[in-house]
Amino acid sequence: MGSSTAAANDVVDKGVDFANYFCTYGFLYHQKEMLCDRVRMDAYYNAVFENKHHFKGKVVLDVGTGSGILAIWSAQAGAKKVYAVEATKMSEHARELIKANKLQDVVEVIEGSMEDIVLPEKVDVIISEWMGYFLLRESMLDSVLCARDRWLNPNGVMYPSHARIWMSPISSGLVDQKMRDYDGAMADWSGFIKETEACYGVDMSALTRPFDEEQKKYYLQTSLWNNLHPNQIIGTPVIIKEINCLTVTVDDIRDVCASFSSSITEENTRLCGFGGWFDVHFRGSDKNPALKEIELTTAPDEDLGTHWGQQVFLLHPPRNVQSGDELKINFLMTRSKVNHRLMEVDLGCEIKQSSGKLVPTIQKKFYIE
Amino acid sequence: MGSSTAAANDVVDKGVDFANYFCTYGFLYHQKEMLCDRVRMDAYYNAVFENKHHFKGKVVLDVGTGSGILAIWSAQAGAKKVYAVEATKMSEHARELIKANKLQDVVEVIEGSMEDIVLPEKVDVIISEWMGYFLLRESMLDSVLCARDRWLNPNGVMYPSHARIWMSPISSGLVDQKMRDYDGAMADWSGFIKETEACYGVDMSALTRPFDEEQKKYYLQTSLWNNLHPNQIIGTPVIIKEINCLTVTVDDIRDVCASFSSSITEENTRLCGFGGWFDVHFRGSDKNPALKEIELTTAPDEDLGTHWGQQVFLLHPPRNVQSGDELKINFLMTRSKVNHRLMEVDLGCEIKQSSGKLVPTIQKKFYIE
Repeated sequence: MGSSTAAANDVVDKGVDFANYFCTYGFLYHQKEMLCDRVRMDAYYNAVFENKHHFKGKVVLDVGTGSGILAIWSAQAGAKKVYAVEATKMSEHARELIKANKLQDVVEVIEGSMEDIVLPEKVDVIISEWMGYFLLRESMLDSVLCARDRWLNPNGVMYPSHARIWMSPISSGLVDQKMRDYDGAMADWSGFIKETEACYGVDMSALTRPFDEEQKKYYLQTSLWNNLHPNQIIGTPVIIKEINCLTVTVDDIRDVCASFSSSITEENTRLCGFGGWFDVHFRGSDKNPALKEIELTTAPDEDLGTHWGQQVFLLHPPRNVQSGDELKINFLMTRSKVNHRLMEVDLGCEIKQSSGKLVPTIQKKFYIE
Repeated sequence: MGSSTAAANDVVDKGVDFANYFCTYGFLYHQKEMLCDRVRMDAYYNAVFENKHHFKGKVVLDVGTGSGILAIWSAQAGAKKVYAVEATKMSEHARELIKANKLQDVVEVIEGSMEDIVLPEKVDVIISEWMGYFLLRESMLDSVLCARDRWLNPNGVMYPSHARIWMSPISSGLVDQKMRDYDGAMADWSGFIKETEACYGVDMSALTRPFDEEQKKYYLQTSLWNNLHPNQIIGTPVIIKEINCLTVTVDDIRDVCASFSSSITEENTRLCGFGGWFDVHFRGSDKNPALKEIELTTAPDEDLGTHWGQQVFLLHPPRNVQSGDELKINFLMTRSKVNHRLMEVDLGCEIKQSSGKLVPTIQKKFYIE
């Protein structure tokens, strides 16, 4: 389905994409935030240095090198040559950093987008930290797959090699807070309508419906970044997508469609929505496996938070649920038509109570902005 | 200098401009914020309804109508026809609002950018709320002038007709707060450098200088929105730019260059920087004057704040000054090369103390983001 892929990509205006997306990555404070994420750093560091055989004497490509850290580690692990590709001006800082660490003879920084640039040779390893919120936000995996199809040797390996998306029913006070925020915004609007009529002779009530829609979208339908505590997980977590980075295509990840069940595991609690997160694994390939498999997980954890946190999809109003209740969920995530790096989610949830009673399907629309 | 204007405009990518700028105006909550600004609303309302002779039976153009409020008032004041031009999808809400207020036979909403659209006739009045922070941020006056040159009748009037930019020396605790923020960010960076070296074997210190520059720009050199209290004004406010909306050209406003003096009027105080604001007047034209002149000012006021507030340019470190000290200021504001709607400021300040002693010129660069 290469043609449909090309067609979808052609719609993207590069200047707009830069204004909306890449610009963030041009700031060092943002790079620092990622470089201070210990879970992220430890996973990549261990993945590289516990599997030096994948790097020693090899040619490596780092897609979206940012400040250059993965390229530097690849070189320190013995790579013969590392191509470090970066779309933003961060490339200049990467070059500086690589020089300061005396690796300029091994690491070559290339400023440009992965889709446009040309390498002088094929590579043995593609390493990249491409994961966005809820794994696929930012759609950066597209660029990694493009790199793989163009530049990876037949026996090459992907770092990471596998990725999974998880979801779980949760309980959260955010559901009340966001409803209060929304109610407050609408109460404020009512006052505004009265005042504008009284003071300025204009009836604004025709805008009440669209304002309500805008506020609902903002407060109730936009997924939230949150660091969930494990005790907020009130049901069995479920894998909704598995990705083999060596074989997956852009068409495989454009939509995420899943039907799954989850059992409520807490007594007498409130189903306030769903938490979503991801993990990735560094396993090498079947032909060329890792010596030590490394996992990077962004699951709720009492101690170890990541800058990705979890994405929370709130259910308004929350529903009372019991241990043993069964949730049947239909989940569809598609890319936003106006910005391919953002997502829309249609989520249907049916609750089959342990008593046998069936709660009618709840159907919700969410935006991952 | 029409050709240089055209050349400057040609550089702007419309999609990027929309992503960076217009998109904000597509949200009703943002429109509401402006519609709740009583100083703004009262000024335009009074300007229109105290000068109905300018509108009665006339053709009016509203540049950037947003929710349509100025177009509606123009129609209510007796306009024969109102063209309400809006670049964003807010045009659809404006159309809805105009219909709900039964003015659809008078007000015609046109979705498009002022530079592109074509009107079927010339107009007698151009009304627009084009003012950005510190008057010129957003560079929206360009579009109003384009409208004037293409569509205003020879005896037509501009609403507002005049605008002025003001500056004044100020005292503000923000100067200490921002320095603390900056110091904190740099202390944090030091810890990060040590940790990255110790845990991950990479020396990041090559990035200290650019990180420092980035943080200085963010915390110390970017002008701030602030609602100043009048007692924070510690010297004589000065007009640094006057604009006659009927005659000014884009070339006249592209740069703002001013040399001015201000006397410190407070005993024993700290010069912490400069506050900038603007006012506009509705006076009609010489040939067709207003019956009642209306002023809209965004100067510091104990009671009446506006959503524009004031722009604050902080001076690090602050200087002790005395009543009678004379400041000589050289001010140059230019448009940012990467985004013509943002500004850069070069400010030189010489302090001549009442004792006769001269403090060497302080030279600072600021960004209005």
